[in-house]
Amino acid sequence: MTNSVLRIWSNVQYDDAAMRLLRAETAGHQLILTESKDAAALADADIAFGQPDAEAVRQAAQSGCLRWVHVDSAGYDRFDNDAVRAALSGREAVLTNSSSVFDEPCAQHALAMIMGLARRIPHARDRQIGDQGWPMLELRAESYLLNGQTALLLGFGAIARRLVELLTPLRMNLIAVRRRPTGQESIPVFAEAELHAHLPLADHVINILPASAATRHFVNDKLLAAMKPGALFYNIGRGSTVDQSALLAALESGKLAATYLDVTEPEPLPPDHPLWTAPNCFITPHTAGGHIGERDRLVHHFLENLRRFTSGESLNDRVL
Amino acid sequence: MTNSVLRIWSNVQYDDAAMRLLRAETAGHQLILTESKDAAALADADIAFGQPDAEAVRQAAQSGCLRWVHVDSAGYDRFDNDAVRAALSGREAVLTNSSSVFDEPCAQHALAMIMGLARRIPHARDRQIGDQGWPMLELRAESYLLNGQTALLLGFGAIARRLVELLTPLRMNLIAVRRRPTGQESIPVFAEAELHAHLPLADHVINILPASAATRHFVNDKLLAAMKPGALFYNIGRGSTVDQSALLAALESGKLAATYLDVTEPEPLPPDHPLWTAPNCFITPHTAGGHIGERDRLVHHFLENLRRFTSGESLNDRVL
Repeated sequence: MTNSVLRIWSNVQYDDAAMRLLRAETAGHQLILTESKDAAALADADIAFGQPDAEAVRQAAQSGCLRWVHVDSAGYDRFDNDAVRAALSGREAVLTNSSSVFDEPCAQHALAMIMGLARRIPHARDRQIGDQGWPMLELRAESYLLNGQTALLLGFGAIARRLVELLTPLRMNLIAVRRRPTGQESIPVFAEAELHAHLPLADHVINILPASAATRHFVNDKLLAAMKPGALFYNIGRGSTVDQSALLAALESGKLAATYLDVTEPEPLPPDHPLWTAPNCFITPHTAGGHIGERDRLVHHFLENLRRFTSGESLNDRVL
Repeated sequence: MTNSVLRIWSNVQYDDAAMRLLRAETAGHQLILTESKDAAALADADIAFGQPDAEAVRQAAQSGCLRWVHVDSAGYDRFDNDAVRAALSGREAVLTNSSSVFDEPCAQHALAMIMGLARRIPHARDRQIGDQGWPMLELRAESYLLNGQTALLLGFGAIARRLVELLTPLRMNLIAVRRRPTGQESIPVFAEAELHAHLPLADHVINILPASAATRHFVNDKLLAAMKPGALFYNIGRGSTVDQSALLAALESGKLAATYLDVTEPEPLPPDHPLWTAPNCFITPHTAGGHIGERDRLVHHFLENLRRFTSGESLNDRVL
């Protein structure tokens, strides 16, 4: 147990209630609030909470006192490089993210997308705000039961594991591909080398991959070509993991029956981007992780890790 | 086991494959196909499959040979009256419906509506086909986790039981109201007299009531007034169970945060009806039970009951 006063740098800018909570619960420490990403104050901080600049983190870990960085997002790709890793490990400093705040809303968002396409929710909405017709026969004939269909998850982190729980009562065949299968997963999980053997069997391919050099354009023309004709593709990972030109071609050719994207490249997707009007392309604007109470939950998640940090316990959501 | 040739009247008009299946599997009997509802042929039939006229059924049961009516819908309200009941019971004739064909798609549809509102699926679609903006912050701030919220089901038949299974992993508080609780239900179920004690606690009220004289305008201004401010109301039952003027008022006053309706009164909802454009009113055009393979499943469901009928076994989905 460390009783010393810690210097906590933070550039989070939340609503008043969440900021009050943060101030109140860190009252025994020195909270350094800033609006910038690369504040010089980072060099003197023990802890950084929010979205610090990666180079500032590298310098502060190498030459300053920084021992712990807690980002308030699931993504941490700008820190995931040799320079930052070396600086952190040289000081036995760690980096944690907030993925456990976003697992649940992201998994629920994926379920909403899957159910939405199956039950033609956006299609019915189009008609409601369009001609106010009653396309009962047409939409009934297009709707489908998910039971017995196969869903292939790309990635098998916490979001995927939660999504498996949510999909279980639908009696689908659930399989996943991840870099290093453990053999302990709740569903059959295969290594990437086996991906192309399973792609032709999947009615649904659900991309939950994070951004990284290794995942850039992971979903490319070759992967899309190997998919089952008429399959559905969802992306709640990161936009950079998909070659959008290849995706557009797969939609225009009818190879894919539809796609539901929560992430694109770039974001915001420019108003004149062809994905907005591509056939059977449905888009939510990077909302998968959002939820009422998100700021409070982010603060609580940080505070629990602060408690663990001061008690010498291992931190939740450690990624580096 | 009855080996005699049965006269099977039917006015179903399905796709070729489903009709071929019906003809092939009833080849040992006399299949009387017609396009009308009140065909005189009903008087000579042993069995009616499809949507016969209620008065024709009454007469055929009273004066003819009719022993079994199998409707290819979940709804059977036009038969649910004393005259038809008396005619059927006088002959020990029974009426079965096709609710077990529609339980699964209806429950999945309700899940799609619940998830759709929680994750702002139709709201994002409005922006996609509208200004192609990127309302990320706005929609994230409006999205909500279902965990811990309370859903109250009006009615606890097969659709409700299946919906409970689908909602279970979301960790909601699920309760229901039905006419005659058995005490054996999988969730707490209350009698109607206790409804008003539970309404103020429900974040979601999900109406799955069938049409009948007893359920007409069950959801009225009094019920809506007793709901929690900002609650959500869904209807996958029948349009007649809701006083739509009261519903409109509850939407316009903001008492309800939103409603999702699959059924209305009348259907189709006329293009100039105020529900189309009422605030936070979302509509699917009576598509909840529809699914690819529906006709095949309806025929299989009838054929299984035909097998049971000829074997003297009790029929599935008997309602009268």
